[in-house]
Amino acid sequence: MSKYNVAIAGATGAVGQEMIKTLEKRNFPVKTLTLLASKRSVGKTMTFKGQEIAVQELTHDSFRGCDIALFSAGSERSKEFRQSVIDAGAVMIDNSSAFRMDPTVPLVVPEVNPEAVKGHNGVIANPNCCTIILVVPLKPLYDLSRITRIVVATYQSASGAGAQAMEELRDQSARILAGEPAAPEIFPYQIAFNLFSHNAGIESNGYNGEENKMVLEARKILGDNDIKITPTCIRVPVFRAHAEAITIEQERKVSVEEARAALAKAPGIRIADDREANYFPMPIEVSGEDDIAVGRIRDDIGNDHGLCLFVAGDQLLKGAALNAVQIAELL
Amino acid sequence: MSKYNVAIAGATGAVGQEMIKTLEKRNFPVKTLTLLASKRSVGKTMTFKGQEIAVQELTHDSFRGCDIALFSAGSERSKEFRQSVIDAGAVMIDNSSAFRMDPTVPLVVPEVNPEAVKGHNGVIANPNCCTIILVVPLKPLYDLSRITRIVVATYQSASGAGAQAMEELRDQSARILAGEPAAPEIFPYQIAFNLFSHNAGIESNGYNGEENKMVLEARKILGDNDIKITPTCIRVPVFRAHAEAITIEQERKVSVEEARAALAKAPGIRIADDREANYFPMPIEVSGEDDIAVGRIRDDIGNDHGLCLFVAGDQLLKGAALNAVQIAELL
Repeated sequence: MSKYNVAIAGATGAVGQEMIKTLEKRNFPVKTLTLLASKRSVGKTMTFKGQEIAVQELTHDSFRGCDIALFSAGSERSKEFRQSVIDAGAVMIDNSSAFRMDPTVPLVVPEVNPEAVKGHNGVIANPNCCTIILVVPLKPLYDLSRITRIVVATYQSASGAGAQAMEELRDQSARILAGEPAAPEIFPYQIAFNLFSHNAGIESNGYNGEENKMVLEARKILGDNDIKITPTCIRVPVFRAHAEAITIEQERKVSVEEARAALAKAPGIRIADDREANYFPMPIEVSGEDDIAVGRIRDDIGNDHGLCLFVAGDQLLKGAALNAVQIAELL
Repeated sequence: MSKYNVAIAGATGAVGQEMIKTLEKRNFPVKTLTLLASKRSVGKTMTFKGQEIAVQELTHDSFRGCDIALFSAGSERSKEFRQSVIDAGAVMIDNSSAFRMDPTVPLVVPEVNPEAVKGHNGVIANPNCCTIILVVPLKPLYDLSRITRIVVATYQSASGAGAQAMEELRDQSARILAGEPAAPEIFPYQIAFNLFSHNAGIESNGYNGEENKMVLEARKILGDNDIKITPTCIRVPVFRAHAEAITIEQERKVSVEEARAALAKAPGIRIADDREANYFPMPIEVSGEDDIAVGRIRDDIGNDHGLCLFVAGDQLLKGAALNAVQIAELL
């Protein structure tokens, strides 16, 4: 089996750390692993397969000899280094939103549209975490009958805003339990014991950036620009897994039994749907888990052609690092 | 002004405590206040207008001379004592689900259907907290154009399950921050840093008791049994205010401007809808507040006749105690 020289840009971030663990856990054929971050992380070391690797500064010379560059260092970094990665002959798998809607860049969820990787020109985009957690369970249902409409409300964890945001949830919770003020820094509002509309800016259509990403990305990945999608993205005081309440309309009525059977055999999904025990997907259960948990599979009592689901997935794994490594595996 | 003899059954519970405070805050014309609870609370005293009142045991003789009996002691207690309240010539305002769907019992939200109190036969039901927080902002929109469909996902606080559940959220959060196991007792699953499908049992249609209540109660209060409603009820780690992501369809297209204007002048509502500042309704802000905060007022990008909202309201106040006292004021 051939082995690859892999680089991770943004290695010290919440997603970067999970990328290292995921490469190890999935036994990805790594020849060399280069860990890249900003200047202030130089000097740190991180462990991969029992070996200490020094973090290096991300520069335009970082990609010589590199085959695959996993990027999770923000959109600006991805844009800045795209050409250097391509010039080095490597493929960039980018976790930022920089190129997701670029028509020349494939936007890939391996369980949904693996064939899309073929058309890449040196860059493959990893979708937004909420989009991934939405489209993985919808794909097997879409294959049963075209989905024409989606209404989705999210319950998004602190991890989506990075490692510091997770720390803020922890610190703030302790402060509030001690009767002290919350003092928000990373998030605009108190996250502990609170929730708020996603902090991405509101765009001209009245939806925030996160919501508009979900709409555009889900359509691109499912390959259907006519799906009507209504998202509401909300941040909740949970550490690292997102949940979503999803209502869909399909061309023909798909029964609950048919939907459950299709979901049960679909890749990347674990059914958590025990009505008698009142056991359904929960963020703490999927944290650290590769699969997306799917439950509350039921008829939409408000629509003859509708179905409802409640799903949860690890934001850092399937929502980011795992999906990126799975894309690398497709290559 | 005439004054009334008021009794509170369940006075020591989370809602009961708020009922006492609300009677005081709104300067309800109380002649005498009788505080009733189970045997084990006898001996406790509670404060009303600076006066210590001893808690008495709830018995069939508790209502002699009583004019208004506010009940928040669970469905079984409401059923058991209904006749004793009526026989005493008092009116029961019941916060439980015991009589809400009884066609002879008015189900009242004073901002929505105050006229319904007239038909009472000794019992008036207070709706479920989620229903109240849903129908107050929908009423002014319904009056602009009939609402034909509602899709709603809730973010429900621990307070909905009582004072002990709020304590459990506090204790569990401290335990988890200290690296100890959560050890759930009141809720079936860990509530700290987690969320789960509402713990009410799943009924034959695949919806849980909380969701089915919302559907039936909202229709009864809005006086329209044809509204199609699709709820998903989720419990989140927040102390005492519920939030709801609401998507509606109306007979004619109502513009965002028209909706905002109608909401701004409707009773019981505070607009929290600043797109530039990314400021919208939040549970911590409405905790202790009488009004329901309404924001994210926007077109449904998936439906030409649709609108979306995000709302938050204090579960113990407008969701329970305040609404009950407002009903008493109507009498």
